[in-house]
Amino acid sequence: MFRRAAITCSDRLSRRLVRRVLRAIGSPSIRVVLWDGAEIVGSDAREVARVLIHDRPTLLKLVFHPELHFGDAYTDGRIEVEGDFSQFLETVYRAMAAAPQRVGRVRARITQWINRRHRNTIRGARASIHRHYDIGNDFYRLWLDDEMVYSGAYFPSPDATLEEAQAAKLDYVCRKMWLKPGEHVVEIGGGWGALALHMARHYGVKVKSYNISHRQTVYARERAKAEGLNDRVEFIEDDYRNISGRFDALVSLGMLEHVGVEHYRDFGAMMDRCLGPTGRGLIQVIGQNRPTWLNWWIERQIFPGAYPPSPRQLSAIFEPWEFSLLDLENLRLHYAKTLRHWLARFESSADVVREMFDERFVRAWRLYLAGSAAAFATGSLQLFQALFARPALNQLPSTRAGLYESIPALGIRNQRAELDEVGGT
Amino acid sequence: MFRRAAITCSDRLSRRLVRRVLRAIGSPSIRVVLWDGAEIVGSDAREVARVLIHDRPTLLKLVFHPELHFGDAYTDGRIEVEGDFSQFLETVYRAMAAAPQRVGRVRARITQWINRRHRNTIRGARASIHRHYDIGNDFYRLWLDDEMVYSGAYFPSPDATLEEAQAAKLDYVCRKMWLKPGEHVVEIGGGWGALALHMARHYGVKVKSYNISHRQTVYARERAKAEGLNDRVEFIEDDYRNISGRFDALVSLGMLEHVGVEHYRDFGAMMDRCLGPTGRGLIQVIGQNRPTWLNWWIERQIFPGAYPPSPRQLSAIFEPWEFSLLDLENLRLHYAKTLRHWLARFESSADVVREMFDERFVRAWRLYLAGSAAAFATGSLQLFQALFARPALNQLPSTRAGLYESIPALGIRNQRAELDEVGGT
Repeated sequence: MFRRAAITCSDRLSRRLVRRVLRAIGSPSIRVVLWDGAEIVGSDAREVARVLIHDRPTLLKLVFHPELHFGDAYTDGRIEVEGDFSQFLETVYRAMAAAPQRVGRVRARITQWINRRHRNTIRGARASIHRHYDIGNDFYRLWLDDEMVYSGAYFPSPDATLEEAQAAKLDYVCRKMWLKPGEHVVEIGGGWGALALHMARHYGVKVKSYNISHRQTVYARERAKAEGLNDRVEFIEDDYRNISGRFDALVSLGMLEHVGVEHYRDFGAMMDRCLGPTGRGLIQVIGQNRPTWLNWWIERQIFPGAYPPSPRQLSAIFEPWEFSLLDLENLRLHYAKTLRHWLARFESSADVVREMFDERFVRAWRLYLAGSAAAFATGSLQLFQALFARPALNQLPSTRAGLYESIPALGIRNQRAELDEVGGT
Repeated sequence: MFRRAAITCSDRLSRRLVRRVLRAIGSPSIRVVLWDGAEIVGSDAREVARVLIHDRPTLLKLVFHPELHFGDAYTDGRIEVEGDFSQFLETVYRAMAAAPQRVGRVRARITQWINRRHRNTIRGARASIHRHYDIGNDFYRLWLDDEMVYSGAYFPSPDATLEEAQAAKLDYVCRKMWLKPGEHVVEIGGGWGALALHMARHYGVKVKSYNISHRQTVYARERAKAEGLNDRVEFIEDDYRNISGRFDALVSLGMLEHVGVEHYRDFGAMMDRCLGPTGRGLIQVIGQNRPTWLNWWIERQIFPGAYPPSPRQLSAIFEPWEFSLLDLENLRLHYAKTLRHWLARFESSADVVREMFDERFVRAWRLYLAGSAAAFATGSLQLFQALFARPALNQLPSTRAGLYESIPALGIRNQRAELDEVGGT
């Protein structure tokens, strides 16, 4: 009898704690089911998913810092989600965005302290990049497009395939920089080489492409050789801080995220060294509307040392050297759509991935891909494409109209803008 | 004999001082001619103009602060320029941009101190705006386009007229905001009413347009009445800090320059109050690549209290309220071209302007218009068009392609981007 009362009391406490967690994340319309079958709903709205919490320690960790511990608990299977996983994440992201200040001072300090471990020094950056990008080309080939482009695509029309959208993105970037045959281009963070090869193939430029992922560099070099482009494209395994030489254009897609705001001065100084008096460049980077921490779990488990800048923070790579910002485009819904494509392909290869790694890996990457899609779809993350140039450069395209003509060479038809949600289902 | 020696000595000093001024502004390829006929060249390159300095006190002032005193001396006729005035100014701007740090600490302090006089409080702003915009609608009608648009135009093709380019700009702005019939729009700094009337006429929206220039407001109201649009467009003579109500879109062309960085918080707070959850807006503002003072003479004589923000400074009106930057376009060469059109029309009406005011006014405004053209053409000034929205707004045009289709309603043909200098002669 005493024992029963204790359990009831403890159950009551658990439910109170769940309610507290739900309130802290803005009361999303989800149902939480505890290990003993108790059910608690987040709001009166129709629930989009059921979240099963399998034990009390997991709940206690969630109380301490939901954003911090959900990821690990989901990875371990101590938390499971019934219902559409992507829709569940979007619902939570939307609720969190609408909730007032979520992270208290103590938790922010802890996050700060842990983030400090991942310092983007030359050595630290190499370790962080190795951990994510060197886990296997075969793995990435399972769910990326044919060209293996691992950054947000550009969908010229709502029904474009992932392959078309990545090709369109590569070409869009080249046209934004109005590349001309014979020019010299430096790329920072070249991935598996798709953009560098595209530039050499279609625009007749010479490219030096830098990367600190060993396996990506080896792979890209093989592609250049197989295509007979290795006289025009050089893949170099080195840090952006060691780049030398003068170039007509500089391009970097999805790499600045790994630099960290405290190193933007180094990055800008490198751009200033590399670009001649008529130089221009394009940076594509995941960003935020205002400075807050990257999702703690992503930073720890997926992208050590990563940080998405706000426009103000981004300006720190331009202003000290008087670079002129020519065009900044926000393509966040295109990234949401890209991630949904990746997630769908990932899920259809889940068994292969499980063979390669294990179930925990599958769950962690599912959360990373679906969570990122939700973050872009709900406006927690942005995708900035920033075009810049030396201040006195006047040989510019007079308008942006040329970017939107059809490109028969790539089989891309004339783009029509439609007033619909790119990210829509 | 003693007297002759003294003169020679003084002449030698004068020449030394001229050389010093020329070095301070980056040794432009101009020739300076002194009151006694002495000639000094700025560089070995072919000279583009001869600058006549008529007396010693003027030279001494130029030594103290060339940027500061040239304007007044030119206005008074104590300095004259022989040769193409615009080309002379561009040459000087280009030399100054290439020269190392031009303004020492003492001179910067003085500039700062004098700038402080023009505080953009509600009362201060009204006085500053009155001084520029209320000097006479008839005067502005002499050299602006038919619709009286007093902000940078957009030239969809290199041979567009000023009238076409201003109409294209108004429409470009509307399409960027994807205005829909029945929506409510608030405009801040509506000038003589052209944009508000264009929006109501072509996009079927309701507009509240704020302005603190009395004469502009009266003029705009008369136009709305004459066009039968006064049930859809309301012109209100009041400060942006007093705006109330909720709107679907917010637009402001060439007004934020007058707000001053120290009031960006007020401006952003107003945007946050005014825009609903699906709200978006467009700000067109003259800017800079990095924060420096506006040309001192312009600030004192033409635009009291004005300041062109850098992208970092501009972000202060967005980030605290989590507005999402969607599209930032730099149209500086379009403004250079606009100003050349204005200058040409101004010069052909110079006699009428002299009748209305006096010779000093003609000279001051010539310097202002030609100097601004030079500043945009040489990259000292930028023109930013920034489109922003609430963070969760997903009903966006999927690409920007729709902006570049032809607009038969306005007689604007399909725009082609050509790789040539908009500002080219």
